[in-house]
Amino acid sequence: MTDIAKYVTDNRERYEAELAEFLRIPSVSTDGSRADDVVAAAEWLAAKIREAGLEDAEVIATDGHPIVVASHITDPSAPTVLVYGHYDVQPEDPVDLWTSPPFEPDIRDGRMYARGSVDDKGQVYMHVKALEARLANGLGMPVNVKLVFEGEEEVGSKNLEAFLKSHSDRLSADAVLISDTGMFSRDVPSITIGLRGLAYVEVICTGPKGDLHSGSYGGAVVNPANALCKIVAGLKDEDGRVTIPGFYDKVLDVSAIEKEGLAKLPFDEPGFISETGVTELDGEVGFDTLERLWYRPTLDVNGLLSGFTGEGAKTVLPSHAMAKVSMRLVPNQDPSEIAELARAHIQNLAPRGVTVEVHEHHGGTPWVSDPASSIFEAGAAALEKAFGSQPVFIREGGSIPIVPMFESLFGPVMLLGFGLPGSNLHAPDEWIDLEMYNKGIATLVDLYDEIASRGV
Amino acid sequence: MTDIAKYVTDNRERYEAELAEFLRIPSVSTDGSRADDVVAAAEWLAAKIREAGLEDAEVIATDGHPIVVASHITDPSAPTVLVYGHYDVQPEDPVDLWTSPPFEPDIRDGRMYARGSVDDKGQVYMHVKALEARLANGLGMPVNVKLVFEGEEEVGSKNLEAFLKSHSDRLSADAVLISDTGMFSRDVPSITIGLRGLAYVEVICTGPKGDLHSGSYGGAVVNPANALCKIVAGLKDEDGRVTIPGFYDKVLDVSAIEKEGLAKLPFDEPGFISETGVTELDGEVGFDTLERLWYRPTLDVNGLLSGFTGEGAKTVLPSHAMAKVSMRLVPNQDPSEIAELARAHIQNLAPRGVTVEVHEHHGGTPWVSDPASSIFEAGAAALEKAFGSQPVFIREGGSIPIVPMFESLFGPVMLLGFGLPGSNLHAPDEWIDLEMYNKGIATLVDLYDEIASRGV
Repeated sequence: MTDIAKYVTDNRERYEAELAEFLRIPSVSTDGSRADDVVAAAEWLAAKIREAGLEDAEVIATDGHPIVVASHITDPSAPTVLVYGHYDVQPEDPVDLWTSPPFEPDIRDGRMYARGSVDDKGQVYMHVKALEARLANGLGMPVNVKLVFEGEEEVGSKNLEAFLKSHSDRLSADAVLISDTGMFSRDVPSITIGLRGLAYVEVICTGPKGDLHSGSYGGAVVNPANALCKIVAGLKDEDGRVTIPGFYDKVLDVSAIEKEGLAKLPFDEPGFISETGVTELDGEVGFDTLERLWYRPTLDVNGLLSGFTGEGAKTVLPSHAMAKVSMRLVPNQDPSEIAELARAHIQNLAPRGVTVEVHEHHGGTPWVSDPASSIFEAGAAALEKAFGSQPVFIREGGSIPIVPMFESLFGPVMLLGFGLPGSNLHAPDEWIDLEMYNKGIATLVDLYDEIASRGV
Repeated sequence: MTDIAKYVTDNRERYEAELAEFLRIPSVSTDGSRADDVVAAAEWLAAKIREAGLEDAEVIATDGHPIVVASHITDPSAPTVLVYGHYDVQPEDPVDLWTSPPFEPDIRDGRMYARGSVDDKGQVYMHVKALEARLANGLGMPVNVKLVFEGEEEVGSKNLEAFLKSHSDRLSADAVLISDTGMFSRDVPSITIGLRGLAYVEVICTGPKGDLHSGSYGGAVVNPANALCKIVAGLKDEDGRVTIPGFYDKVLDVSAIEKEGLAKLPFDEPGFISETGVTELDGEVGFDTLERLWYRPTLDVNGLLSGFTGEGAKTVLPSHAMAKVSMRLVPNQDPSEIAELARAHIQNLAPRGVTVEVHEHHGGTPWVSDPASSIFEAGAAALEKAFGSQPVFIREGGSIPIVPMFESLFGPVMLLGFGLPGSNLHAPDEWIDLEMYNKGIATLVDLYDEIASRGV
């Protein structure tokens, strides 16, 4: 064991105690009454970064919650890595479903349970502790590092892009490192190289000008809730394919090499089924589960509302009916183009006697990166050393809109995350595995040497 | 003009003033805090009935709101007519949409606006005033009359059937007269001889055990909201026909004589469209609007709920989705049988990967009466004299569950109503046309002679 590895192991309890301190601050960004807690979390984090040896760490105000910025410049001509993360957290609701209070970290079976433990305070703090370990042990930094930790990720990163642009001198970098994703499984360290994009529309179907009595009018006045169901049902066919004309035109096929990679992954389908609680899986015909989640676009209803939804029976013919419909996109689909195709198809599906409005919500571009670049090689090497097993390149079915944004502003983005499946992100009983937390710190300690030896 | 007709005309202002007094009592039966007002309305009504000459009028307690009972027995061997109505009213919400306060009757353009004006206090009070006019003018009663006015019609008449049975000696009758319906139009006095029935099911479609992130799971986990839309869309075909196997098996064809009657009715389709505010009407292919409303069964979604329904976008794959679906039935469909057929068909339509529950809510039997009976002839004759135009026999698309119940307990039921289309029943700005109110009293004054001359 190297000196630094020993240091990381020896300090394990302190790392956990400090993380617990961080997690006790309820920095819920969407809750206006907790704005002071969000600031307190930023100040706490900046102080810890200064203690770690990045003495310029500061909390900078924005129009929303503040952003923590720090840097350690070894040599202005050396490559610079920008580390992004967020110190804000999701609301803890429904609070009564937590086993232990969401802001009183509790360790059970090697996991620390608390809101923000894995998303993303725990992963942010791994970076701080990795830097501390290097600097405290006299390893120094073979590349420059800059940190940018925001407090608005859970509310849409509203002020981030403008901030990055207005602080471009201070934040210029050659590559971006983000730890806000997960591992394929406990034994399979992972780098995420693809994210799906998003197009999101809201469909409002209107019939009569007010709710009518379904007895007096039913049968002659077209029911907008029935019409809406007809429209939504018409968006997918029996094979689970989206019927919007042109929807698949720009979708890239799953390549032979990607299929080969997928086949090697030890995907635990029974575990996935039992985690979700469904009776069986189903989706687009001709693709398996990981292809459906990572490589294929899809269409999901996210919300439905019409008429009487209380207990019991009310015989109303509703005036209108609403569906929120989102589509996950893959390279090279374009969110605006897909939303437009969806709008046209929805209007075509609308039956006589109702009017249909289609509103577009904010979307996101799908993202995929080339694993054959030096930064990914560096990440893979560091993961392999810390975990003792070969890492895999995976994708994620969700969208992280800031990733394409960072890539366009700075260059390659590496998503090196340490969450485990089933960590209850955005749900009660969120947890981080403390062994992953410690191995993550070890990975990040080593990573800078791996990057320095390969370049960016 | 006969003496009695002159009396009714001369007393018009007093009749209106008394009705306004009745309408000022906010007898909202569903509102527990107004239970005293409901009792006050019953006591007020009983007092007015005694003043009219039915001295035995009394308010009898039930497990819910009380029932007002009275009688005028001329000759125990003569036919007896039982008049049913209700003195309770719907809630006034949303109160801010009323032009004048709901419990401060206001006369505008020949209409009295107030909650309960037409449903059903105004129509109940026509009966009281008709009896008063006959007795005050020495006409006497050529048949026996009994009154039963309940205070729970708007909350499902929970105690009525048991009350009628437990007071069967006092309430025995040969025919039942109910004024709680409407006229085809202002110039077309009407007797309603058919009502649709009701079968009502609630469909709950369940996928994952909790809400999931639609990015991380969408495409591989079946979405219960999409599944629900597919099920609901599968309940009707392109021709607007219900697809439930066996649904139409017992439906009676519209007879030639009924089609002839319908063709004669001056149905104002543009007026109906503009009243509802739809762009156009549509329904089951092969039938016109009145056939669709009165003679054909139908299926309407009354409510939809799933996932995220707030403002903006949330990418949730919902755990479950709910639809309330009601079917209006016509003779000779049976509500329980239809609900069972619907349940089986819904289960058949359910896609893989979701489970579907179908719960049955309370239904109602369709009802139709034979217009060629003496009581309808009597009603038609009285209407023609009072209105000066030939009455029509119409149906109503809604259900009145107590009608089949009265028929089974007593004998023929005549629905002789004086509401006009667009009276805003159960809505803000409910009104009664005061000319119809006066003509209705005149009709009911004459009706007893017409019944006596024809028998029951």
